[in-house]
Amino acid sequence: MCQPPSLFQERIEQLETAMHTMELDAIILNPGPGFSYLSGLSFHLSERPVLLLLVPGRGVALILPELELAQLEALPFPAEVFSYGERPEQWPQLFKEAFARMGLDKKRIGLEPEQLRLLEYQLCRQAATTALFQDAAPLLSRLRSIKSEQEQQLIQRAVTIAEQALETTLETLCLGMSERELAAELFIQLLREGSEPSLPFMPIVASGPNSANPHAVPGERRLQPGDALIIDWGASHQGYVSDLTRTFAVGEENEELQRVHAIVQEANGRGREAGKPGLACAQLDRLTREVIETAGYGPFFTHRTGHGLGLECHESPYIRQGYNHPLQPGMTYTVEPGIYLKNQFGVRIEDDIVVTATGSVSLSSMNRNLTIVG
Amino acid sequence: MCQPPSLFQERIEQLETAMHTMELDAIILNPGPGFSYLSGLSFHLSERPVLLLLVPGRGVALILPELELAQLEALPFPAEVFSYGERPEQWPQLFKEAFARMGLDKKRIGLEPEQLRLLEYQLCRQAATTALFQDAAPLLSRLRSIKSEQEQQLIQRAVTIAEQALETTLETLCLGMSERELAAELFIQLLREGSEPSLPFMPIVASGPNSANPHAVPGERRLQPGDALIIDWGASHQGYVSDLTRTFAVGEENEELQRVHAIVQEANGRGREAGKPGLACAQLDRLTREVIETAGYGPFFTHRTGHGLGLECHESPYIRQGYNHPLQPGMTYTVEPGIYLKNQFGVRIEDDIVVTATGSVSLSSMNRNLTIVG
Repeated sequence: MCQPPSLFQERIEQLETAMHTMELDAIILNPGPGFSYLSGLSFHLSERPVLLLLVPGRGVALILPELELAQLEALPFPAEVFSYGERPEQWPQLFKEAFARMGLDKKRIGLEPEQLRLLEYQLCRQAATTALFQDAAPLLSRLRSIKSEQEQQLIQRAVTIAEQALETTLETLCLGMSERELAAELFIQLLREGSEPSLPFMPIVASGPNSANPHAVPGERRLQPGDALIIDWGASHQGYVSDLTRTFAVGEENEELQRVHAIVQEANGRGREAGKPGLACAQLDRLTREVIETAGYGPFFTHRTGHGLGLECHESPYIRQGYNHPLQPGMTYTVEPGIYLKNQFGVRIEDDIVVTATGSVSLSSMNRNLTIVG
Repeated sequence: MCQPPSLFQERIEQLETAMHTMELDAIILNPGPGFSYLSGLSFHLSERPVLLLLVPGRGVALILPELELAQLEALPFPAEVFSYGERPEQWPQLFKEAFARMGLDKKRIGLEPEQLRLLEYQLCRQAATTALFQDAAPLLSRLRSIKSEQEQQLIQRAVTIAEQALETTLETLCLGMSERELAAELFIQLLREGSEPSLPFMPIVASGPNSANPHAVPGERRLQPGDALIIDWGASHQGYVSDLTRTFAVGEENEELQRVHAIVQEANGRGREAGKPGLACAQLDRLTREVIETAGYGPFFTHRTGHGLGLECHESPYIRQGYNHPLQPGMTYTVEPGIYLKNQFGVRIEDDIVVTATGSVSLSSMNRNLTIVG
């Protein structure tokens, strides 16, 4: 990411303040979005453990393979580096040294259960047998959920790339094309428009009865007149992602599809416009869901209304029942109501929203009407 | 994967036999290669936990979100299913029910530390407080390291796709192109040739001094005459992967590059041909490394000679010092010697090898000579 060193220093300071209120003495992170958020570095999870230790007052330590040392040239702050060669036998001793150097005896160490693997966790436990490990995920995700102006711009760019890529892809769409072929073409257009190749997720292209499965995988089914066609796709820009869905009618009008689509479109509109500072996420879910319930399709809207997005495609806040945190300016999330009629068809319309000082705006603007394609 | 149900039944039986010798009562897996190997299903890691429990004598249980239930239609064996809605508050109780139903009280449960996240591990620990959890990774990776004829064919296909994609990409290569542009073009050609979009890794395109970093990330540097150019890339076919590297000279002859390339090419040839049943992996590393050491470049070959590949790009066996397991028929691995001269250039040549009944053969055959491109 092309971001100034001061940005990372700021994030670390914010995290340290939050750690202080939770009485945490340290945080450990393995490669993933939290790691990138704090360090600007992107390592992949591999069989070789990588760990960042942040200890307020002592600074940052990194444990990593020698093979990755070159990446540290981009590190925006000083760090104590503990590197190892090609022998896993060296890992336990190196972790011990790093934890001892950072003074982690009997300390309270925060971690992220959704990210940390048992591999790293066990090495940490052995290295700091007297330390107390506890969940620090809410702390990090709260920090990450408020996007700066610059982060919002990066997400906006990821949205624009995605929208342009789908526009170009639709020009090539024709009857008889398979879901898989259409997904591959969309992938190529995403790259051509400038998305990073590490897409937030593989595009979902689901036609006919397959569209009734919210998490369908593109297969060999070919587009036929009368099909509903759900395309759920996103782009990645400097690590930040977009996540959109549109539903089309293939080849011809289809009355039932039109009726259901209109309901989902109304729910999407309600959800897009309702967001504002102070509104509980569960309440936003409720408002959106109501439109579908009132129309008699409540049981067929089988998932939450949406999820936060940023460095991850699914992150805080979650727009669902039971998640009562209030929206705050700078939060970004999806609104994606859907109706799924098993063995028949499904409809979903998804946009990416950012909370402003007084309300919310949609970063995505592509036509949401039921369009006939092919 | 288009594989017969009996295949998965066979794998489970083999695993159960191995579990018996280790006195393991159960295995738990979260989404990843082991999960796919046993079930044929591919879930992505997300904020929603997914778990497979295998208990010999009792069968298989799956814990997963309702949203993913449709995927189970492809499950090649019966399973007890425990599904949950959109409220994480339900997870602990559901895990408890599943573990109770499978009779896991006081049992020995195997897991994979490189794959299992703390999220799932903690839910399991709470669900089976009297169970003993232990590392079962070697058992699973040993099973997966021996590839059937069909698996070898899938890897062969992934190799062929990769080779064809690079051939086509090289036709578009020209001076002044950036590493990033070349990597994007290669990605597109991989898709066009039929690779699954979930590549085993993002192609490495490293030019000039960047080629001296084994894990370089393609950047804005533009190809210049006299550059060394390392391309390290792979394709994915029905979940199985390839992983290849070739080194080129950009625009013109370059004597030092030729000399170093010849040494690496000799080491690659030695490594490609040396594999056979019974040879220790460390010994294969030794034989390959010797060529480079003899030429006086030992300290500049900074990584292991290779790694197994299959459903994962890095898996058992590892071709490195200290890994003394013998090669066995059906094992597939890379041979990828390299020499890295910091601030100058690097050379790496990587092929994918399969062990036969009497020796080994290379699945990759693309020209390994130092070719001038651009």
